[in-house]
Amino acid sequence: MRLKNPLDMHLHLRDNAMLKLVAPFSAKDFKAAVIMPNLIPPLCDIKSLKEYKQRIISACGTEDFSPLMTLFYQNYEYDFLKEAKEHIFAIKLYPAGVTTNSSSGIANFDISSLKGTLQAMSELEIPLLIHGETNDFVMDREANFAKIYENLAKNFPNLKIVMEHITTKRLCQLLKEYENLYATITLHHLILTLDDVLGGKLNPHLFCKPIAKRYEDKEALCELAFAGHEKVMFGSDSAPHPLSEKECCGCAAGVFSAPLALPLLCELFTKHSNEENLQKFISDNAVKIHKLSFEKDKIISLKKEKWQIPSKYGDVVPFKANEILEFKTSL
Amino acid sequence: MRLKNPLDMHLHLRDNAMLKLVAPFSAKDFKAAVIMPNLIPPLCDIKSLKEYKQRIISACGTEDFSPLMTLFYQNYEYDFLKEAKEHIFAIKLYPAGVTTNSSSGIANFDISSLKGTLQAMSELEIPLLIHGETNDFVMDREANFAKIYENLAKNFPNLKIVMEHITTKRLCQLLKEYENLYATITLHHLILTLDDVLGGKLNPHLFCKPIAKRYEDKEALCELAFAGHEKVMFGSDSAPHPLSEKECCGCAAGVFSAPLALPLLCELFTKHSNEENLQKFISDNAVKIHKLSFEKDKIISLKKEKWQIPSKYGDVVPFKANEILEFKTSL
Repeated sequence: MRLKNPLDMHLHLRDNAMLKLVAPFSAKDFKAAVIMPNLIPPLCDIKSLKEYKQRIISACGTEDFSPLMTLFYQNYEYDFLKEAKEHIFAIKLYPAGVTTNSSSGIANFDISSLKGTLQAMSELEIPLLIHGETNDFVMDREANFAKIYENLAKNFPNLKIVMEHITTKRLCQLLKEYENLYATITLHHLILTLDDVLGGKLNPHLFCKPIAKRYEDKEALCELAFAGHEKVMFGSDSAPHPLSEKECCGCAAGVFSAPLALPLLCELFTKHSNEENLQKFISDNAVKIHKLSFEKDKIISLKKEKWQIPSKYGDVVPFKANEILEFKTSL
Repeated sequence: MRLKNPLDMHLHLRDNAMLKLVAPFSAKDFKAAVIMPNLIPPLCDIKSLKEYKQRIISACGTEDFSPLMTLFYQNYEYDFLKEAKEHIFAIKLYPAGVTTNSSSGIANFDISSLKGTLQAMSELEIPLLIHGETNDFVMDREANFAKIYENLAKNFPNLKIVMEHITTKRLCQLLKEYENLYATITLHHLILTLDDVLGGKLNPHLFCKPIAKRYEDKEALCELAFAGHEKVMFGSDSAPHPLSEKECCGCAAGVFSAPLALPLLCELFTKHSNEENLQKFISDNAVKIHKLSFEKDKIISLKKEKWQIPSKYGDVVPFKANEILEFKTSL
């Protein structure tokens, strides 16, 4: 199998030592990735964003990888955004308190309070990426956010809104109801339900936000992804945490999947779909939706070769640690 | 507040070093406790059960505590049960694979396959305690077991059936529909929802089976317990695991609450109910339901005195570790 310009449309690279550890895995297998801005402090100005981008590039170990930078959503002025536009791919909105480093996110989704920024983004054609969860009961948070997505989609029909890492049947349906709603889907949400997290023993390495949901939710996600649905893009949400922050009291949310994302997707699509739909899911849909272009193509080959996922990369336990995969990537 | 003969109608004491560590806490505050038989191997014969009972008594550090022993459910002969009756309080049924050490439990709930044993138990007036969960999606397991409870309650109208550690509104309702259905409720299920387990960070020390459910479920449990409902008994399901089996990949299910159960119940009932209903919940209901009697009474006083729950007892992290309680027990 050969994939052209694989894109990870939702990636956490962290900073400092962790950045150096994890960035090369994404840079090796992907042509580009959309980099999340939820550092401490969050990325809210262009200087910090450019510096972070440089640190990413230095950490990647290859020039053939583009970090597509995002700003952390705040109420930004039109002039700021106009200037920012050439440096950013999108703006990522976190509701306050819903996930890692989101405490400075948005608590109020009144259209009036968001209007200035979102209108400017519409005009400047800057996409809005949203972590769509309310602060309700954990299994309802995403579905309950649907009404906010609808409200935004209706009020800003020219704004490209990406519903990030969707996990529910409800959002799979909503996606089809509004022209300006798009979605990313992770690898792990194509595989997991809450049963995997805590139906047997509790597995902290599968704890993530949004939490994996019910079987019918997973099936709805798989249906979209395996069909290569044109409004759906792959976004790994690969989010490394050191072992000491996972196997502990107060385990951090996140699944680290970057080193095995392409091989495992290849396995899944070989079994349940085909190469053509994987190409759409992994790249072509995003290229069309976001009008992306690259100076030269990066072709990733996936050959049949068994390998065992390591128990750890540095001090980070990856998704599917110690399991055997069927495919291996190479340039 | 003074409580007469507090009873823990569902308790895991384990064996060996763990037994020695945890038994004194229950023995100090309770008059008696129903001891779970899910050891490895499970308790299925009277010799093992009597030996285990002796080990418990030796570990307790007081003579004023009665371990009420249970056998692990299998298909037993009438004659065996007739002889066993004087040594056991009840028989505990685990569906295969639903919780710690339950692999040799029951996979088939056809009435025909259970009839011999359950009919004998009915005649001999041996109560049946059930961990009521199916192998369905984790949030549905208990509610989906309702139909099995109904089937058993209808087919064995003279069998006293205790629905153990109920966690759902569904079973709170079912309890009222069949005369021969009773229930135990834990302390932690009066306090927790799934949000506490993984709505913020993930807390392995709150991971238990059945898993804590939704707010409306917790409210239904509180309504029954705080009313001192006559068919409901306190059963802590206190279940110690060493730290290394909780803060790890593959965390074991169980909340260790024995040392703080009475003080925290006292706090809850003082706030939401009253002493009279706590007396019913903690003892009187069980005494009536199971026709229990004691040679002499054990009176536990709860005086207002702040104390901090330790971070660990031995290598076991207790429920509410490090939190401050308002009441303290004394004889």
